[in-house]
Amino acid sequence: MSTEREPASGSTDSTDVTDVLFRPKSIVLVGASGDPAKIGGKLLAHLRDGGYPGEIHLVSKAGLPIRGLPSVTSVAELPVDATIDLAVVATPAAAVPETVAALGHRGVRAAVVVSSGFGETGTLEGARLEEELRAACRTTGIRVLGPNCQGVANLGAGLVASFSSTFSKSTGLTDGGVAVLSQSGAMAAVLTQLAQPFVDGVRYWAATGNELDLGVADLLRGVVADPAIRTVQLYLEHLGSAPVLAAAAAEAARSGKTVLALKSGTTASGSRAAGSHTGALAQEDSVVDAFLARHGVVRARDPREMSELVRLFAQPRTAGEGRVALVTNSGGLGVLLTDEAEAHGLRLAEFSPRTLAELRAGLPSFAAVENPIDVTAQLLSTPELVRTALDAVEQDEGTDVVVVALGILGEYYDLDQILADVVDLQRRTAKLVVVCWVAGHAGMVERFAAHGVPAFDDTTACMRAIGALARHGRRLAEEDHVPLGRPTDAPDGTGLQSEHRGKQILAGWGLPVVDSRLATDVDGAVAVAGEIGYPVVLKLSGPTIAHKTELGLVQVGITDDDALRVAARRMLDAAAPGGSVSGAVDGLLVEPMVAGVAEMTVGVVHDAAVGPVVMVGAGGVQAELLKDVRLLVPPVTEAATRSAIESLALHPLIDGYRGRPPGDVEALVRLVVDLAGTTAVREGRVAELDLNPVLVLPRGQGVVAVDVALTLREPDR
Amino acid sequence: MSTEREPASGSTDSTDVTDVLFRPKSIVLVGASGDPAKIGGKLLAHLRDGGYPGEIHLVSKAGLPIRGLPSVTSVAELPVDATIDLAVVATPAAAVPETVAALGHRGVRAAVVVSSGFGETGTLEGARLEEELRAACRTTGIRVLGPNCQGVANLGAGLVASFSSTFSKSTGLTDGGVAVLSQSGAMAAVLTQLAQPFVDGVRYWAATGNELDLGVADLLRGVVADPAIRTVQLYLEHLGSAPVLAAAAAEAARSGKTVLALKSGTTASGSRAAGSHTGALAQEDSVVDAFLARHGVVRARDPREMSELVRLFAQPRTAGEGRVALVTNSGGLGVLLTDEAEAHGLRLAEFSPRTLAELRAGLPSFAAVENPIDVTAQLLSTPELVRTALDAVEQDEGTDVVVVALGILGEYYDLDQILADVVDLQRRTAKLVVVCWVAGHAGMVERFAAHGVPAFDDTTACMRAIGALARHGRRLAEEDHVPLGRPTDAPDGTGLQSEHRGKQILAGWGLPVVDSRLATDVDGAVAVAGEIGYPVVLKLSGPTIAHKTELGLVQVGITDDDALRVAARRMLDAAAPGGSVSGAVDGLLVEPMVAGVAEMTVGVVHDAAVGPVVMVGAGGVQAELLKDVRLLVPPVTEAATRSAIESLALHPLIDGYRGRPPGDVEALVRLVVDLAGTTAVREGRVAELDLNPVLVLPRGQGVVAVDVALTLREPDR
Repeated sequence: MSTEREPASGSTDSTDVTDVLFRPKSIVLVGASGDPAKIGGKLLAHLRDGGYPGEIHLVSKAGLPIRGLPSVTSVAELPVDATIDLAVVATPAAAVPETVAALGHRGVRAAVVVSSGFGETGTLEGARLEEELRAACRTTGIRVLGPNCQGVANLGAGLVASFSSTFSKSTGLTDGGVAVLSQSGAMAAVLTQLAQPFVDGVRYWAATGNELDLGVADLLRGVVADPAIRTVQLYLEHLGSAPVLAAAAAEAARSGKTVLALKSGTTASGSRAAGSHTGALAQEDSVVDAFLARHGVVRARDPREMSELVRLFAQPRTAGEGRVALVTNSGGLGVLLTDEAEAHGLRLAEFSPRTLAELRAGLPSFAAVENPIDVTAQLLSTPELVRTALDAVEQDEGTDVVVVALGILGEYYDLDQILADVVDLQRRTAKLVVVCWVAGHAGMVERFAAHGVPAFDDTTACMRAIGALARHGRRLAEEDHVPLGRPTDAPDGTGLQSEHRGKQILAGWGLPVVDSRLATDVDGAVAVAGEIGYPVVLKLSGPTIAHKTELGLVQVGITDDDALRVAARRMLDAAAPGGSVSGAVDGLLVEPMVAGVAEMTVGVVHDAAVGPVVMVGAGGVQAELLKDVRLLVPPVTEAATRSAIESLALHPLIDGYRGRPPGDVEALVRLVVDLAGTTAVREGRVAELDLNPVLVLPRGQGVVAVDVALTLREPDR
Repeated sequence: MSTEREPASGSTDSTDVTDVLFRPKSIVLVGASGDPAKIGGKLLAHLRDGGYPGEIHLVSKAGLPIRGLPSVTSVAELPVDATIDLAVVATPAAAVPETVAALGHRGVRAAVVVSSGFGETGTLEGARLEEELRAACRTTGIRVLGPNCQGVANLGAGLVASFSSTFSKSTGLTDGGVAVLSQSGAMAAVLTQLAQPFVDGVRYWAATGNELDLGVADLLRGVVADPAIRTVQLYLEHLGSAPVLAAAAAEAARSGKTVLALKSGTTASGSRAAGSHTGALAQEDSVVDAFLARHGVVRARDPREMSELVRLFAQPRTAGEGRVALVTNSGGLGVLLTDEAEAHGLRLAEFSPRTLAELRAGLPSFAAVENPIDVTAQLLSTPELVRTALDAVEQDEGTDVVVVALGILGEYYDLDQILADVVDLQRRTAKLVVVCWVAGHAGMVERFAAHGVPAFDDTTACMRAIGALARHGRRLAEEDHVPLGRPTDAPDGTGLQSEHRGKQILAGWGLPVVDSRLATDVDGAVAVAGEIGYPVVLKLSGPTIAHKTELGLVQVGITDDDALRVAARRMLDAAAPGGSVSGAVDGLLVEPMVAGVAEMTVGVVHDAAVGPVVMVGAGGVQAELLKDVRLLVPPVTEAATRSAIESLALHPLIDGYRGRPPGDVEALVRLVVDLAGTTAVREGRVAELDLNPVLVLPRGQGVVAVDVALTLREPDR
């Protein structure tokens, strides 16, 4: 199976091609059928029923008219003078490469290949056909979506070029401000169906299959250019072209749209399953997380969470500072929602005296007026209690979000009155109003949604979605402070650098590295120690020397000339011909002993898909075991770095835990931001960098990297 | 507000009283009304409509007949010769204590008080009324459920003594094998409603309100005694009487029933909210977790998860070894479910060659036959592909659970055929068959459930529930190995013990404590050091001395007599009159220096509700920060202890991480099990015990506690 993802060298660039895919002036359907049980039959039915206004040409086995349209038996027989933008190809796999080549030669600009039987089969035959198809693209310049895909739709233009059941009549899908782009056809259908009751409609829809040429990332660029689109739902098994995805996500953020992504393959087994499904390369899920976070893409864990997130992200209000007022008819629901609010980074609003007075005046004496408000079972006989509570919290200045949480059912409650009161509040206020209706599928959630009030059927789901909206708002605010890069010298060479050279390079980038001096013999080392003062650390430095500690090539706490001479001689002997160290040696590094408040670790890795990723975490074997690290994808802001450091489990160690002196956290933030901004990191010249440990000194005294392992790589083309 | 929970000294014990509550031979409704908008009207309507076969007496304001039944205006006017088992009281709060006292004097055995306006209001008046009500119970021996509760029902006996909308006609609730017991009325309604489509029916239902006397735990004892009950759903804001709950849960486990619990107040804010709702004391959620786990209670996070768990726990099949076969029509769904299987402790079955051959023979060439199976979009035209896949996995010996995961919708699929095939498989096989139908609320989940096939509408939910079932099965197997207690001497005294005495006590219990010897003067210390050999550790021991390290009262690594004399003199000076240490002193402890593979910590705390809780975790400040500890409630099995230790994030440190010698994990397990089994711990004599560190020696060499801080408490009455 193929894992190559570079675009075929087509003549139509990505922006233009989404125009062809979503707004073709004319279409040819190759493999058309009059039988609605067949895929070619469904494609034609959807194209006609969808109201496609352009010209439709058909190629079919029999060449007879189908549904009132003429057909021919091959691409060659199509009218010579017809300009055809887009082809939809549904022939058996074996015929696809030749067909696509013929379409390309004829000037058709793009083909949607729905046929299966290519790389996804894991067979040699499938791989061969996929290679032939790629060659057809390369030769003729035609761009391809698929193969093994379910096609595209643009309900804003009456285009349905897909056989997905999404477009069967019973779903009643309408045009609206949401787009669904998916690497899986079934998942595209699922996400559309789950979102539908909660959004105004879906305009763009695409299932990209094997992504031989065009992928979700390419389509995203085209989709976010439409001002009518507010939210995009992605289903991803791999990131495809990460730079294209990043650019499209940035464009979405600039124009106030939100991209939601369900990325599967988060575990080792899931990643293997994804590999056999679409040929995706296994990828560290933490890198995917950092990449999506960097580009403002909000991640969902499962289809259900996606359907919950879209309810809040497809509407225009924000969660402000995340201060929630809870209006319930059940103390129990109030407690559950309070737990979930805290678990998802929200907090309960503290009501003003005025709000409390209004609540006391309007609610029964045995009601709870402190947040969470409990109007009690009295709601059975007094439906206007909800309105009383809503009026009070509507004017409360410390409230950003009003959550109406009701666990009621049956004919005992005046549901219509409660619905009307909540909808009326939503019209009067600028606050976000959310309903949590926890009592089975009585259709109330959908009824609120139909009136434009986001509604949830579960306590965790409700607070998780509001928490995500609040977090996204905070992140957008941080984006005003993205630092420019720091132009730094690009180092020569590739491969592991000696510790001496690594430290020189980092110091040259203006990063805080321990005062480390090179001596080439024992006397030189003693002289250097005299300059910097005992105690000192002695290390052997050379471009092939890693794991110094294990090899006895580091000695700390040397307190006098004699001890230094013994250690220096031992290390030079090890490096001499016949000694335990092979390879070139720079010499001996002499460094002052530095003691910090705590040891941290900072680093860079180069991910095959995402490129440079910066890492910050606690130091030591325990932190390593606990994976107490955070990843950040450049460009890295101070705010994001500070949040990442503060979110470390071991963060208290540098923040004055149990009477320790507080560490210089701001200097650590600057080190990470500065490192991420260097030309070398931004341009992908760093294959791996490990600053471990970075000593955090007391507040105001900075940080210092005492060990440096730097591996350089070739610049990206 | 009251936080007391001890039962009023009633004459009817808990087992009998559940009989009165759930199977009363006659009832009086105090506060009856003919107006269905009033609570007293709903109570009467439910009692009549539910078909209650016993005698019904009414007390009402007007004393006129209601719904064809006579009524009187006070308890005193009730017929003298009538034997009345149960009263339901719905008068204003102020009249309740007097009414309940009159009922008690009359010989009524129990009262369900639905009236609000007691402790839950947080007012002095409410607290006073609650105290008066308690006095009425104490004086007359009547038992009370409530106040501020929504009542009880037993659909197996035609009893509905509740005004909850659960029992309004539209819900159509029927009798079945589930019980719902809740500290919140609305949550009882919610849990019932959410479970209903997925279970055969609900027999017992109770909402216990303020739990002045009887609580969920008391009712649970009565409910699990009914052989028809298979599953109990609890909603808890506090544990109530933990011993009663533990005993009832044990009885449930013995009779093959499962208790599911939704316990709220998991966060600090939620716990505060619960306090103002029901007067619950704040409680560490980790202790609640350990308590529920110990007693085989399966915990749900939210109402939705409760409704998902009951689908699997209300049916008889197990998840075996948790090896799952996935049959999907979507590679994407397969990947998502594979991720979730791994995340929830399950694994994908490895199909036998025979299974693979059957799948290859029956499925399209481009289908995926390795687990997860993807029958592909070909299902559109070939509905029998699901059956083909099911037939193959049904006979697969490495498969315990078959998950059919379909993301399909609309009229394109033969849903009836697929439903019939899955139901047929379920009838033919003994394996657990589960459906994951991820495509909106098309009613398919409920259709499968109606045919007895547990079904879910989400990937995470499906695997989370199966994972819980598999875990519960493993836990039940472990229960065969609950150790008996270890009869050990009960120590005298209370309060913090000196380190010397603490070590003597633990050594007396047969636990591995460092060889620690007491000297009373400098010469004595030197003599002891001569016996055990240098290097040694010196400590000052006394019953009021804590935090020795901070006070300089511990010195490690003493290598000779001179250094020992200096240290000993310094410590004795500190303990002399006018020195820095006040309080009595035992003397000087001299101990050998011991080095372990890693430092762990083991301890005991006495929780106010739960009693003794044993703790095991990694040692050191990092582990402390990371809360890398596990709690276990006695009796503690070896298997549970081993699982707890293996689940520690820092477990690799004692398991041969990066070339370290593997530690004696089994000795650590024995220490925890033995400690938990001591008479003193089991009988609640240990207020707090801190063995920190416990050094883990290389495998086969044991563990040794080097610091001991033991605080004893009075025995429980």
